Amino acid sequence: MEQGGQMRELGKPQGTRVGIVMDNLRERIASRSLMPGARVPSIRVMTEALGVSKSTVVEAYDRLVAEGAIVARRGSGFFVSGHAPPLALADLGPRLDREVDPLWLTRQSLQPGSKVLKPGCGWMPASWLPERGVRRALRAIARDPQSPLADYANPYGLPALRQQLAWRVAQHGVEAPPEQIVLTDGGTHALDLVCRFLLEPGDTVLIDDPCYFNFQALLRAHRARIVGVPYTPSGPDLAAFERALVEHRPRLYVTNSAIHNPTGATLAPAVAHRLLKLAGEHALIVVEDDIFADFEDEAAPRLAAFDGLTRVVSIGSFSKTLSAAARCGYIAARAEWIEPLIDLKLATSFGNGQLTASVVHRLLVDGTYRRHLESMRAKLADAMGETMRRLNYAGLDVWTQPRAGMFVWARLPDSLDAADIARHALGADVVFAPGNVFSVSQSATGYLRFNVSQCNRPKVYEALQRAMESAAASGERKRA
Amino acid sequence: MEQGGQMRELGKPQGTRVGIVMDNLRERIASRSLMPGARVPSIRVMTEALGVSKSTVVEAYDRLVAEGAIVARRGSGFFVSGHAPPLALADLGPRLDREVDPLWLTRQSLQPGSKVLKPGCGWMPASWLPERGVRRALRAIARDPQSPLADYANPYGLPALRQQLAWRVAQHGVEAPPEQIVLTDGGTHALDLVCRFLLEPGDTVLIDDPCYFNFQALLRAHRARIVGVPYTPSGPDLAAFERALVEHRPRLYVTNSAIHNPTGATLAPAVAHRLLKLAGEHALIVVEDDIFADFEDEAAPRLAAFDGLTRVVSIGSFSKTLSAAARCGYIAARAEWIEPLIDLKLATSFGNGQLTASVVHRLLVDGTYRRHLESMRAKLADAMGETMRRLNYAGLDVWTQPRAGMFVWARLPDSLDAADIARHALGADVVFAPGNVFSVSQSATGYLRFNVSQCNRPKVYEALQRAMESAAASGERKRA
Repeated sequence: MEQGGQMRELGKPQGTRVGIVMDNLRERIASRSLMPGARVPSIRVMTEALGVSKSTVVEAYDRLVAEGAIVARRGSGFFVSGHAPPLALADLGPRLDREVDPLWLTRQSLQPGSKVLKPGCGWMPASWLPERGVRRALRAIARDPQSPLADYANPYGLPALRQQLAWRVAQHGVEAPPEQIVLTDGGTHALDLVCRFLLEPGDTVLIDDPCYFNFQALLRAHRARIVGVPYTPSGPDLAAFERALVEHRPRLYVTNSAIHNPTGATLAPAVAHRLLKLAGEHALIVVEDDIFADFEDEAAPRLAAFDGLTRVVSIGSFSKTLSAAARCGYIAARAEWIEPLIDLKLATSFGNGQLTASVVHRLLVDGTYRRHLESMRAKLADAMGETMRRLNYAGLDVWTQPRAGMFVWARLPDSLDAADIARHALGADVVFAPGNVFSVSQSATGYLRFNVSQCNRPKVYEALQRAMESAAASGERKRA
Repeated sequence: MEQGGQMRELGKPQGTRVGIVMDNLRERIASRSLMPGARVPSIRVMTEALGVSKSTVVEAYDRLVAEGAIVARRGSGFFVSGHAPPLALADLGPRLDREVDPLWLTRQSLQPGSKVLKPGCGWMPASWLPERGVRRALRAIARDPQSPLADYANPYGLPALRQQLAWRVAQHGVEAPPEQIVLTDGGTHALDLVCRFLLEPGDTVLIDDPCYFNFQALLRAHRARIVGVPYTPSGPDLAAFERALVEHRPRLYVTNSAIHNPTGATLAPAVAHRLLKLAGEHALIVVEDDIFADFEDEAAPRLAAFDGLTRVVSIGSFSKTLSAAARCGYIAARAEWIEPLIDLKLATSFGNGQLTASVVHRLLVDGTYRRHLESMRAKLADAMGETMRRLNYAGLDVWTQPRAGMFVWARLPDSLDAADIARHALGADVVFAPGNVFSVSQSATGYLRFNVSQCNRPKVYEALQRAMESAAASGERKRA
């Protein structure tokens, strides 16, 4: 259920006083409480702090220099050796087989190649997005003498778009005036900025188990400790949530509540209320990724709406519903957090791209987006019904009937392992999304996430069927 | 010359053994070697490590709990209290008057308002950028059935643009095949990604003094210790550079070498060679921000070219020369760093925007960019001559004659303080850039940076003259 924060196993204290001093420093270096390059406490300080003689500390430091753990610099004391190696996300956290590694699925999904089918992909095919609308918006922007084509964006982001967003989030009950909305380059950038603002390395973050797989990679990039809470069809398991609050004292909880990824579940109002009460009691901040807001026919409960942006930060984007080529997202947060968020945004990206923000703005105000959403929802509802019917026919169990959206979370029959299915299907150029990609506890072995907009080709089900047969056969071989 | 890493002044050890234990923990909490929420060493470990009795440690912990520094959790030990406050860049590093605060100048420069003149701004007016070309590119993209209008980008970024970039950096002697180039959303995003990859919190980074002001804000966001090295008209002061390497063991050196911001200086080949030799001897990695590459008529020496991307990472963007509304930058780095950089990019932004990348690509291949650069350079050369003439006439001394680019670094006469000038001129709606905004040591009190493309209105010099008179008068009043 938990990862990160492992302490390297160290040798037993040598029993001697010199050994105690050495072990004290070795442990602080291994746990990174003393970072590479950091100054080691002076001999005087160590002597006082550890209550040992100066000669003991001197001998311990000499030995640590000899073994290369620390270095002496004339006149300025002792320092931890070397530099930390570059940050390789693939090396942080537990080593996973690539079939269930979130970064690997991201790469697979992003690889172009038109003959590959991607029922495990997290977005809709380009043909389901309003490409003609985007073309029309580009022509309009090219024509308009007022278009922002050269300059950097206003630090907050395009004012007209923030105005639109204030109105849109109000439709979901979230009251955020334009001054409390910050534009970003997409939803991931929004979450990244919020994590930069709120997290220190080593902070604990709660996520749903299962949850959107990139949350894990992003949080690892922030050196967060990740703790998963089981997700139920009406929201997180509140008993487990409370235990995690008590035991791990997390700083943040990151979730999508309206339509949950990957399960398609919707938060129940009672769960939302209880969750916010617990958050208040435990000084927890909640980041609600509302990226699937516009897939809903009727607005499900929003934590940000119940809470009034006190301890909930709401983020969103148009990458799933409009275009992922024109990166544009936003953060809605409490008023006094806006200025420091803007400072961080300027320092780390010098503001978001206003060309793409104006593409999105045009499509929101000219009616394209509204019309697109209507037809998209109808298409998705049809595809959802058809996909569930076919999955049932193939012998899979749907975990919960989604109210809307594009994801179906389904369990394989006969204890089949979804990673085996994904491996077999990849050979036939079909990318499935095995459950453990989404599960920090690796407890979703028997599940697959299906994107109904990418499941309308018979080849998907043929590949699924064949992969299930192969996996069953190799399972029997293993047992035999 | 140096900032960050200040240790909070703590009370003197109380002398008793209990006091020693308490001070040991207090100091580790204040210096963040024990972070909020972190587990405190167990009573047993502390007893062994400090060579004191168990009852001493128990009493010390009880007192620290009573004063709220740590909390006890049943069955799991002691933890540092609370969470760290959100990261407010404005509160990190030294407190500066807003006249010389880098974040403040960024905000001022980004504020729209057509009646405000911005000779201190870091970019050219929109009218100096190829807006018509951008409009044409948008129309062409709208027409082209192959345009990437809906999908996420390839993880590396648009292949055709990386191909173009490989060819372009080769013109400056930097050999980077397209596989060693990663697209980003602008130059700041590129530097941010490199810092995420290479820096740990607490690492030391060398920067030029003076240097581009946003380097300071960005590095503070990464919790880096910043050490400045004086810049000379031929590059960094190598004696000071070597001393800083020995004394501070920095991980990175961040610079722009081709046309240095804010001084307009150019790196001399001998300095480049010696600098790279020192970097090799001290395991230093260099990030060369080549954002002004295309302002040059003749390519000045590049560290990345001399080094062959071994320990130099080259970054760049088109925000200064083409459009800042279409965010597009790149990283060129050694081959084995590309995959982990891509993983980090996906985790933290899910890739760059390919709509803007294709705008840039169109303008590079249709000849617009080449023609624009030719006329832009000619215009800048004229403006450079005119600005230097007028600054001389106003009594300022130009520090070095830039070979190209848009910046002139000039010293005020009569020990005037540039921050006073900036304050007075702001009242007349003219934004100047006082030297200390760029100086980590705050040693450029008498300097201003002028952007020659923003200096062609007589009102700039009138405001400068009046501000100088007012500053001189108030200086005399102060002395009187």
